[in-house]
Amino acid sequence: MITRMSSLFLRTLRDDPADAEVPSHKLLVRAGYVRRAAPGVYSWLPLGLRVLRAVENVVREEMNAIGAQEILLPALLPREPYEATGRWTEYGSALFRLQDRKGADMLLGPTHEELFTQLVKGEYSSYKDLPVTLYQIQTKYRDEERPRAGILRGREFVMKDSYSFDLTDEGLAKSYRAHRDAYQAIMARLGVEYVIVAATSGAMGGSASEEFLAISEVGEDTFVRSSDGSYAANVEAVVTPPGQPRDTDGLPAAIAYDTGETPTIATLVDWANGALDRTVTAADTLKNVLVKIRRPGEDWVITGIGVPGDREVDFKRLEAAVEPAEVELLGDDDFAANPALVRGYIGPAGVKAAGGTYLVDPRVVTGTAWITGADEAGKHVVDLVAGRDFTPDGTIEAAEVRDGDLAPDGTGTLVSAKGIEIGHIFQLGRKYTDAFEVDVLGENGKPVRLTMGSYGIGVSRLVAVIAEQMHDEKGLRWPREVAPFDVHVVIANKDEGAVAGAQALVEQLDAAGVEVLFDDRKASPGVKFKDAELLGVPTVVVVGRGFADGTIEVRDRLSGATDEVAVGEAVDAVLALARGEG
Amino acid sequence: MITRMSSLFLRTLRDDPADAEVPSHKLLVRAGYVRRAAPGVYSWLPLGLRVLRAVENVVREEMNAIGAQEILLPALLPREPYEATGRWTEYGSALFRLQDRKGADMLLGPTHEELFTQLVKGEYSSYKDLPVTLYQIQTKYRDEERPRAGILRGREFVMKDSYSFDLTDEGLAKSYRAHRDAYQAIMARLGVEYVIVAATSGAMGGSASEEFLAISEVGEDTFVRSSDGSYAANVEAVVTPPGQPRDTDGLPAAIAYDTGETPTIATLVDWANGALDRTVTAADTLKNVLVKIRRPGEDWVITGIGVPGDREVDFKRLEAAVEPAEVELLGDDDFAANPALVRGYIGPAGVKAAGGTYLVDPRVVTGTAWITGADEAGKHVVDLVAGRDFTPDGTIEAAEVRDGDLAPDGTGTLVSAKGIEIGHIFQLGRKYTDAFEVDVLGENGKPVRLTMGSYGIGVSRLVAVIAEQMHDEKGLRWPREVAPFDVHVVIANKDEGAVAGAQALVEQLDAAGVEVLFDDRKASPGVKFKDAELLGVPTVVVVGRGFADGTIEVRDRLSGATDEVAVGEAVDAVLALARGEG
Repeated sequence: MITRMSSLFLRTLRDDPADAEVPSHKLLVRAGYVRRAAPGVYSWLPLGLRVLRAVENVVREEMNAIGAQEILLPALLPREPYEATGRWTEYGSALFRLQDRKGADMLLGPTHEELFTQLVKGEYSSYKDLPVTLYQIQTKYRDEERPRAGILRGREFVMKDSYSFDLTDEGLAKSYRAHRDAYQAIMARLGVEYVIVAATSGAMGGSASEEFLAISEVGEDTFVRSSDGSYAANVEAVVTPPGQPRDTDGLPAAIAYDTGETPTIATLVDWANGALDRTVTAADTLKNVLVKIRRPGEDWVITGIGVPGDREVDFKRLEAAVEPAEVELLGDDDFAANPALVRGYIGPAGVKAAGGTYLVDPRVVTGTAWITGADEAGKHVVDLVAGRDFTPDGTIEAAEVRDGDLAPDGTGTLVSAKGIEIGHIFQLGRKYTDAFEVDVLGENGKPVRLTMGSYGIGVSRLVAVIAEQMHDEKGLRWPREVAPFDVHVVIANKDEGAVAGAQALVEQLDAAGVEVLFDDRKASPGVKFKDAELLGVPTVVVVGRGFADGTIEVRDRLSGATDEVAVGEAVDAVLALARGEG
Repeated sequence: MITRMSSLFLRTLRDDPADAEVPSHKLLVRAGYVRRAAPGVYSWLPLGLRVLRAVENVVREEMNAIGAQEILLPALLPREPYEATGRWTEYGSALFRLQDRKGADMLLGPTHEELFTQLVKGEYSSYKDLPVTLYQIQTKYRDEERPRAGILRGREFVMKDSYSFDLTDEGLAKSYRAHRDAYQAIMARLGVEYVIVAATSGAMGGSASEEFLAISEVGEDTFVRSSDGSYAANVEAVVTPPGQPRDTDGLPAAIAYDTGETPTIATLVDWANGALDRTVTAADTLKNVLVKIRRPGEDWVITGIGVPGDREVDFKRLEAAVEPAEVELLGDDDFAANPALVRGYIGPAGVKAAGGTYLVDPRVVTGTAWITGADEAGKHVVDLVAGRDFTPDGTIEAAEVRDGDLAPDGTGTLVSAKGIEIGHIFQLGRKYTDAFEVDVLGENGKPVRLTMGSYGIGVSRLVAVIAEQMHDEKGLRWPREVAPFDVHVVIANKDEGAVAGAQALVEQLDAAGVEVLFDDRKASPGVKFKDAELLGVPTVVVVGRGFADGTIEVRDRLSGATDEVAVGEAVDAVLALARGEG
């Protein structure tokens, strides 16, 4: 098809939109791909919609290739199924809730585990029907607290969500693997630079899960990779290699000291280097952070978290570690109610005396000696030995992860980077099939509870991610697989012959099945070239001054390379490029 | 592609669903095309989604053919634009409203005039950009009071809505005509039997509008056609041919009579035939129905509606006639407050005496004489002449339309039928461009207010309509253009050679680009044939007993015809059918 810019619904903007901070957002708006309709809610204009549909198609093809079957569920959903799994409440204010005219509670689907589970229960009853994988490419809704960066984190967005149903754990592992492979194929076709990280599964429930993160400075997710690249994990999912337990025999006894006004690790280290006969660093101290934790349906429990004093507690890691329990820092009221807890001087004993739970970083193992609070103002204990002088109630992954930390699998040290979540695959197990009692008749005549996987790809987000990773200072640059057009033909010569030549070229390309954007506007070549760079079609053909001499110009938007091609060979040259043979 | 029924997510049902009343609903559920998720909210299973997408594509191609440009707007919308046009309120409880986490009012878009208008205002500023037509194929939401018949009238549904923007009324008329033609092309391709009727435009505002109604006994819209078929209109839009005014000179004087207990037309006619020296029918009486009407922002006004006594007031026609005003029947309180209104004996004078407005049917013209109420209990006036004894404040189209009424354009008499609204085209004019002040710079340097058209097609509804019009007692029957598959190949022979032959045939068809549904299940031929009839793929190929003798069976689902074809010629025969050459 030929799309003429003279009548295309497209207005490029010279200036960045005021509310845009990240390059993809600026460029997608400036190039007329999307427009904001409400906070976190965007309209797709002709070029944007073409890219969105192209991304959808890549995803669809790869899902079909693993035998997943496409269906389409509604976005407007009844409350009951989400009530049954607890997610009506768990989603908190991220869920768009509404009532219909009869007062029935409804919601806009943020993800569809419940409905797919009910659907399979309704249709299938025998082991012979399994396994089955269903998917949809559908509009989803989440009332994000901070929608940002245009379509990168919207409140209405397009997602591919699929759900596998298997008879056995091995079957689930196979379905999971098939999705993992399909996602890798998708990202490869889209040209997205990504990393697969071990992830925690958040509100989704379930056990094994991995995230596909697009590597990007504007990402909101921090992940770490081992120096040889073989290990990668979401920071929340990093497992600290535990320290080696040591024999406590022969270690010096713990001694309490008056340390004066030393409520911080820095002041404590200063005191120790003055008062003790050794060099002390923050890593020799044990910092005890007090929080309270509440498991669903239970009371708050005061919890001390002991970490080496050179590290902070990373609250996101802490939250992930205790989920689905909630966690909060201890407030003034809590300290007032528990005089055993002396701020700035808290030790393991104080936590226990206050009836609390005491959890430690995995580095705090039996035989390690620490300088820590003595539970009296101005006092600390030196050489308090784990496993001898105190026994933690368990370990917790709450300490911050830092560049240079050892990778859990021994593949070197960790380096952190930023990423954008573009896919998430979960081995959910039986959380949802238990909630809805989804059994089929097994081969032996007994009921089998199905096991389930859930797999998502942010389709509209991928459009922004590709823009983010591929753009340059002049504008967008689309990989051929998702470009809104194959070729952008620019008339940059008012001569009648050149105009007719451009027209003929465009028609020949069209006849050959090439999607052509034809800049037939009465604008200056400069304006047209700038727009071509901004719009980012991979191949730009300029019918310009050289036409009189029998040549046209073929520009590669990605490499920036320019070729002079004889007019008679232009169609073949462009076709070769459009077919990826360039 | 080959879709194998052994692994297809499909379960056909023997029994009709309990909540289904119309054939399309029963069959689409029984054949596993759709499933109910909530009242008026449906999931599309694999076969249903294929038909839906096929209908979408036909609509898309025809919209593209008239130069309309596809975009995609959100479904979740801010309140403000709908507030600006009054539709936030006008839509009443048909609008799904919700609040986001910050308490901002939002809605689920029922139709998108406001957003498209704002979009064009934002992008375009010069007459050079016009005209432009934009469209989307998108999920819409209306909280129907009575969702019914599955996807025929859902609360979440897929619609194609387009919007034209023109500089002049002539331009709008041209855009409107282009849509009208495109809609006719779409219906022809889909094989839908339809009629185009003059319509009132309801809450949409604007002047000229027509509806595309699919002819169907299960339709909710009543329309009338003239006996020669050249006139058709929604009942609400029928214009009554006015009576011929006559000279009032020489007509008998009006005389009031004691008519006794005659509060109904029937009792009045009985009295008249006994008391007067002529034959009287209900058509000689003037029935005065009392209502109150409230224009937006004004007070209720008592209104008498005078219609020939052989006709009822059709409340839907009355509502359409007074829109956007509201109308209600007069209540006991109103009668109590207005003693001039004597129930059962109301005449034109009484309405005026009560300070009301008096409107009449267009048949009540100057010189017509009526028997009507004398505004006293037990009294009526005979020979009350319009234009002499009373002067109405105007006419109103509120009387029922009946089979046999004259067509307004003189093309015979009217016959009524039922239809399903599948398309609606509006010449909106400047209602929305006025609301948002959408001007562009005209050729003469002065601002030009744009004029607008709005055009909708119920895409998901069309799936039900096609099922409704095309089915037979055995199941669905799809036109090739939208069939979920081109060919349904059934193995009805357990012989290894036959199975291998079917497999080879299926692969050859697939290689030729035919979409094949392959019934490779281990079920009996009877079960498979029943399912094939239920599913409704246009061509069914049976590899059965004849295979040993070198033949297969090719069945036409539409005509029911069966052909024996030599195995070697099977692929060509099926290809010819799939290409519509059969």
